[in-house]
Amino acid sequence: MRAMLVRDVSEFGLIDILSRALRGPPSCDSGLLVGIGDDAAAWRPRSGVTVFTTDTMVEGVHFDLEWMGWAALGRKSLAVNLSDIAAMGCSPSYAVVTLGLRGDLPVDGLTAMYEGLAEAARGYGCAAVGGDVVGSPVFFVGVAALGSAERPEAILTRSGASPGEVVAVTGRLGSSAAGLRLLRSGSPGCGAAAGRLKEAHLNPRPRVAEGRALAEAGVSAAIDVSDGLVADLEKLCRASGVGAELDAYSVPVDEALRSTFPDDWLDLALGGGEDYELLFTAREEVVERAAAVVDAPVTVIGRTVDRGEGVRALGPSGVPLDLRLRGWDHLGAMGRP
Amino acid sequence: MRAMLVRDVSEFGLIDILSRALRGPPSCDSGLLVGIGDDAAAWRPRSGVTVFTTDTMVEGVHFDLEWMGWAALGRKSLAVNLSDIAAMGCSPSYAVVTLGLRGDLPVDGLTAMYEGLAEAARGYGCAAVGGDVVGSPVFFVGVAALGSAERPEAILTRSGASPGEVVAVTGRLGSSAAGLRLLRSGSPGCGAAAGRLKEAHLNPRPRVAEGRALAEAGVSAAIDVSDGLVADLEKLCRASGVGAELDAYSVPVDEALRSTFPDDWLDLALGGGEDYELLFTAREEVVERAAAVVDAPVTVIGRTVDRGEGVRALGPSGVPLDLRLRGWDHLGAMGRP
Repeated sequence: MRAMLVRDVSEFGLIDILSRALRGPPSCDSGLLVGIGDDAAAWRPRSGVTVFTTDTMVEGVHFDLEWMGWAALGRKSLAVNLSDIAAMGCSPSYAVVTLGLRGDLPVDGLTAMYEGLAEAARGYGCAAVGGDVVGSPVFFVGVAALGSAERPEAILTRSGASPGEVVAVTGRLGSSAAGLRLLRSGSPGCGAAAGRLKEAHLNPRPRVAEGRALAEAGVSAAIDVSDGLVADLEKLCRASGVGAELDAYSVPVDEALRSTFPDDWLDLALGGGEDYELLFTAREEVVERAAAVVDAPVTVIGRTVDRGEGVRALGPSGVPLDLRLRGWDHLGAMGRP
Repeated sequence: MRAMLVRDVSEFGLIDILSRALRGPPSCDSGLLVGIGDDAAAWRPRSGVTVFTTDTMVEGVHFDLEWMGWAALGRKSLAVNLSDIAAMGCSPSYAVVTLGLRGDLPVDGLTAMYEGLAEAARGYGCAAVGGDVVGSPVFFVGVAALGSAERPEAILTRSGASPGEVVAVTGRLGSSAAGLRLLRSGSPGCGAAAGRLKEAHLNPRPRVAEGRALAEAGVSAAIDVSDGLVADLEKLCRASGVGAELDAYSVPVDEALRSTFPDDWLDLALGGGEDYELLFTAREEVVERAAAVVDAPVTVIGRTVDRGEGVRALGPSGVPLDLRLRGWDHLGAMGRP
């Protein structure tokens, strides 16, 4: 028996099926007044501050069903949004999901995707409360998400850095880009190492608790590493009006990255994207305090300098590297037909 | 000199250009803490109730650049979201915009689109505070929008109708579907009448003030007419657990619809979509009260009955019409390759 496809069901039938996948024990619905199935979701807002972000994944640009499973697609489409909320030092609260669907997609795949998304949401105290389903010749999954913090002063922005601070990062960088390279090449890679890299690309974990802890510790500015370390550091520096020196060889990487890509590991760590780690600036003693409470490795990788010095990556001898580093420019990569 | 295309600029350059188009005198930023250009927008929420919705327009499915101008596309992509907020009896507050972009789209067109969107937002007391730009082989525009009401009791849902109420609608129906038919056929139509119909499709006005007034007047349930009158009435009835009888020939239509489509006007009024009028239920005296304060025509078009009687459209003699009426099922129409 052939699997049921999107084109076999009506829009309203599909929405019913998918809505059921989103239901389950919601974890933040104490104030929820209207959930899925009305013109809009409704709730009583928490006082303090609300943050709002959106991110979309397009088939062939951000994922390929050949190598990305349905549940992982659901988790990641949410995770990339929660990472933005984490970078603001906030806790996620509500999300809505937009699906652009080809008629030949399997309904059970979409259901698994929604279940993966809903499960991930619950794990982060967030509830998927609605969405939109539209026909589209290319498959895409968009999420818009809200978060909150108790006090407006507690949120992190990109613009709070000053010269003379240190630059630090959570976790390890470059694994996601390396994993994507393996996934795209269809290469089985080398056992556990390749598996770790692929997993980093397929199942990124947004640093939600870590972002809140960094905000509490008093770091000055933060951004999540989505476009690549150097590109995102440049954005933070531009927003803050500072420059930065990066000690390239101090950037933390997984041993699996070094062993799998012995020639390219540094390029991947500096220029690869989709790590969804938090890049932040703070006075040195604040970073030490943060490192003691954050449940992730925290590594100092450089320092902020005056704006006029720009953003540079230094080699072991302190000489600037000419890596022609570039962030992942999805549009640059995909806008060309 | 060739126009600058999306593929000629970097992702970050494009975001800079588009962000400037969104700027301008914001109308609801009293509590805005962080606008465009950070990981997320941030503001102090109003107390009361928050509503959240999202809607996406896909090229070739919901619009065609052959007949839809850039500014109109921006306005409409926002309007369809504000219509959902209007149907909840709420005021719009903040929106984020997602663009899925082909490389061969003109940057000045996208700028005009953003300007149209921002201008429409300001007109409704809403601010566009961020978004996402991704490469995509098909062009799409998604908006996620928030709204608010002062008191949770004041919001309208689809689920509050009871048997024995009347069914009413704002404005006139079917013009948008008629306009789409003219636009798709490339037909010049007949002067002013055709112009009115096309305008109804291209520039729908969300009934924001009207939705608030209906909520204040105490109507029991509401939905916006996006999929078609009968389809949306069915959704309201299903959510409320009631049936409904529609007096088909009392459905208000523009004279331009009747004169341009003398054979099909009733089908277009009952089954066409994208009118973005408000369909609502209330006790008869509440409708009279609402009609006196709402700045739009309000027409009684039927009554709610017991659930078991379903949703029927009656002809002038009270005999059910067999119109095989169907809402616009975008997915049904487009999911088939």
